[in-house]
Amino acid sequence: MIILGIDPGLAIMGYGIIHYEGNRFRPIDYGAITTPSTMPTPIRLKKIYEDLNKIMIKHNPDAVAIEELFFNTNVKTALLVGHARGVAVLSAANNDKEIFEYTPLQVKQGVVGYGRADKGQVQQMVKTLLNLSTVPKPDDVADALAVAICHAHSGNFKDMFKIK
Amino acid sequence: MIILGIDPGLAIMGYGIIHYEGNRFRPIDYGAITTPSTMPTPIRLKKIYEDLNKIMIKHNPDAVAIEELFFNTNVKTALLVGHARGVAVLSAANNDKEIFEYTPLQVKQGVVGYGRADKGQVQQMVKTLLNLSTVPKPDDVADALAVAICHAHSGNFKDMFKIK
Repeated sequence: MIILGIDPGLAIMGYGIIHYEGNRFRPIDYGAITTPSTMPTPIRLKKIYEDLNKIMIKHNPDAVAIEELFFNTNVKTALLVGHARGVAVLSAANNDKEIFEYTPLQVKQGVVGYGRADKGQVQQMVKTLLNLSTVPKPDDVADALAVAICHAHSGNFKDMFKIK
Repeated sequence: MIILGIDPGLAIMGYGIIHYEGNRFRPIDYGAITTPSTMPTPIRLKKIYEDLNKIMIKHNPDAVAIEELFFNTNVKTALLVGHARGVAVLSAANNDKEIFEYTPLQVKQGVVGYGRADKGQVQQMVKTLLNLSTVPKPDDVADALAVAICHAHSGNFKDMFKIK
């Protein structure tokens, strides 16, 4: 099973494609789609959409897992990141992918097996499970791989996390 | 000049296309793209994107004017509406349109000439300027026509409102 994990953001959209079979992981491709804040928003959204489309076509994932976002205070940021996440969800929908979403807590639970794991523990687990020599940078890339692993680990309960 | 005005929302996305020349307005088409909350979010975004694309291709507007959104409290709502607005901006960008955004206050100023005008005054002005027999319903449609009129009325200052 090929899973595309996405950590959505407007400036940095992390992505990670992994292969999962018989409880074993293999990284296929990972990185970040970055757009500078000097670029007009429509062009940033266009770039994110096009780059994600290319990734979906190239790797043809069986599932797309995207992190759910939470913001405590900044409504303006939420609205803007919502633009980017909406475009990511659209790209997956237009490529006929099944889409699943996981909260940060669920990602920790799914990757480390412990919902209160810290960021470092999650990153180390990503490195170990994917047999990487270092933790991928920036954090958004490691986070995208983490949400992909989380989806692999959701076993028979995947439907619970299908985007509504 | 043909202007497409958009009042963005996930459940109801109002749109209004107007023709403006020599200080005179003519309505071309207006309505709402609606998606029920029972529909999965990716499918809602897909429908909004496809319907807007059709509208852009059919009417080939010279400019797209989209309302800026403000939320006082609800971050969750902001994030969700951000998804829909992002998809609308993407549709305009992918159709090579120039995109402008106006705050609710600027729309009032641009339509009525008075930033503290109330909703009723704006709607009456939309009805009068477009020579309609009634105020279009739901409010989102009247709001979309209002933002299109506002853009027409921004004269030589249009570049100030170009989306960043």
